[in-house]
Amino acid sequence: MALSEFALIERYFSACGARRSDVILGIGDDAALLAPPPGSELVAATDTLVAGVHFPPDSPPASIGHRALAVNLSDLAAMGARPAWALLALTTPQADEAWLAEFAAGFAALARGHEVALVGGDTTRGPLCITVQLLGHVPAGSALRRAGGRPGDALFVSGTPGDAAAGLALEQAHLSAPPAAAAYLRARFLRPEPRVALGERLRSHASACIDVSDGLLGDAAKLAAASGTGVELDYQQLPLSASLLATVGDPRARELALGGGDDYELCFAVPAQAVARLTSELPPEHWRYARIGTLTASSGARVLREGTVMEFSHSGYQHFG
Amino acid sequence: MALSEFALIERYFSACGARRSDVILGIGDDAALLAPPPGSELVAATDTLVAGVHFPPDSPPASIGHRALAVNLSDLAAMGARPAWALLALTTPQADEAWLAEFAAGFAALARGHEVALVGGDTTRGPLCITVQLLGHVPAGSALRRAGGRPGDALFVSGTPGDAAAGLALEQAHLSAPPAAAAYLRARFLRPEPRVALGERLRSHASACIDVSDGLLGDAAKLAAASGTGVELDYQQLPLSASLLATVGDPRARELALGGGDDYELCFAVPAQAVARLTSELPPEHWRYARIGTLTASSGARVLREGTVMEFSHSGYQHFG
Repeated sequence: MALSEFALIERYFSACGARRSDVILGIGDDAALLAPPPGSELVAATDTLVAGVHFPPDSPPASIGHRALAVNLSDLAAMGARPAWALLALTTPQADEAWLAEFAAGFAALARGHEVALVGGDTTRGPLCITVQLLGHVPAGSALRRAGGRPGDALFVSGTPGDAAAGLALEQAHLSAPPAAAAYLRARFLRPEPRVALGERLRSHASACIDVSDGLLGDAAKLAAASGTGVELDYQQLPLSASLLATVGDPRARELALGGGDDYELCFAVPAQAVARLTSELPPEHWRYARIGTLTASSGARVLREGTVMEFSHSGYQHFG
Repeated sequence: MALSEFALIERYFSACGARRSDVILGIGDDAALLAPPPGSELVAATDTLVAGVHFPPDSPPASIGHRALAVNLSDLAAMGARPAWALLALTTPQADEAWLAEFAAGFAALARGHEVALVGGDTTRGPLCITVQLLGHVPAGSALRRAGGRPGDALFVSGTPGDAAAGLALEQAHLSAPPAAAAYLRARFLRPEPRVALGERLRSHASACIDVSDGLLGDAAKLAAASGTGVELDYQQLPLSASLLATVGDPRARELALGGGDDYELCFAVPAQAVARLTSELPPEHWRYARIGTLTASSGARVLREGTVMEFSHSGYQHFG
């Protein structure tokens, strides 16, 4: 596929994404040459999307392109990093020009929105599978990590988790909803908006941070475990969208918020004495985050409803315990 | 696959590759944190291997792990870069522990040999497909590029191209060979040795360089096109291994050297007046390279036999012309 690889990359990806002065050499040679800013640390993430596993195979191509970059932007957001350069490895069963044009447009629009340049890639023939590698940077020593939380820290989540899981169920016709709610929830799955700007701001506030991609409860548990703490989530404080509530009702909405995947929101801890500064400098109504719990000295993850620990048996809560 | 992803990565990949003091944070968080050396440019490449496209699906898992890294090491070698950090995206139909252990061992042995740390990755369920992103660095302004060659520059290739194509044919039982030759040629496909050390040395000699992965003639043509020159290759100067000659005979060996893929050697141009210094400082018998032709003012790629332009119709020579 040597010639068509070349032609495809040239046509659809050579001008894809942002132009950046720190790209010394982009697509077209054996590797890209990049100039990280002095005094910074490099931040690198990679995530793969496989058709039929991470998205329905008949998803809109623009959504697949958007999500392939978004899931990596969300990883960098969780580090407090500024994204800069992406490499795209696209494996596709055939060189369908209309599909490629839409895929590239979805990727490019999100890349430009975050000033990310596409600097390299590889196009191969095979079952549909997309791997993006995203590079960015943080001022040295300032990155957010999963570790760093302490017992007593307040725990927050951005956005309204659970929406994307409902959106996927709508895409797969496993769920129905009023038209406006359906449109909102489907967009939450098809075009997640990674919280890059929030992540960068959180560098001066948060003690720990994680990307919520596998379900809020499980990801909060990972943050707690990395920090050597436990975590208690307040069932009644979970932030829920009106569309999710209108579509699945209250108990199911909270289950999806705790266990649904594909949110690409940030879950972060803030020392108790720093919460007032956080909410003053980053007003929650503007930055769209909410307090959902507290890190604890005892290990494990618990959900409390009016002070009582709840039990979950749903497989989505496999991290629970 | 969230839990098993975590378990797999932890078990097989967390201690995979070299330990490096410039890895601030490796596998286990949302992204890796890395410290590029001051005064360097970052070099980034990515390549995907798909089962049934880039290797027979029943290839030894250690070979697949080796090749997934080797193809990217070869890209960095062609830039004259020093490799440092890799990210691995592995998509596999099932979590077969024996397969994973062998794959990881093949990857890790090559990584350690080149002091490459595995700093991140993603493991997903799906059709077998491996994407590696490799990061390295060069002193600022010193990277080798495909562009930079000038008419009159001498053209060289490392190693003995064509061996890997014969090795793949042996793997697929499309060819037979005497046992010693078969073992040598199969190893050249299964465990290519990217010319990283040579690439770094060539920074002070070569005007242009490319990784030979799609066939020498086609890749030499790409170097020439990027340099705004043409290229003439001398049919009788092509370096051939004794094993290849013993297996396929003379005319076919030269065809494979020109059009076979998967060599992962370097093709590089050196100004005529700098050739004596090259061969003095990097003795060809030690560094294993040979002169194969000359860059020309007229565009296009030609193969000359005793001064006469040869014609090729084989599909492997699709870049020819």
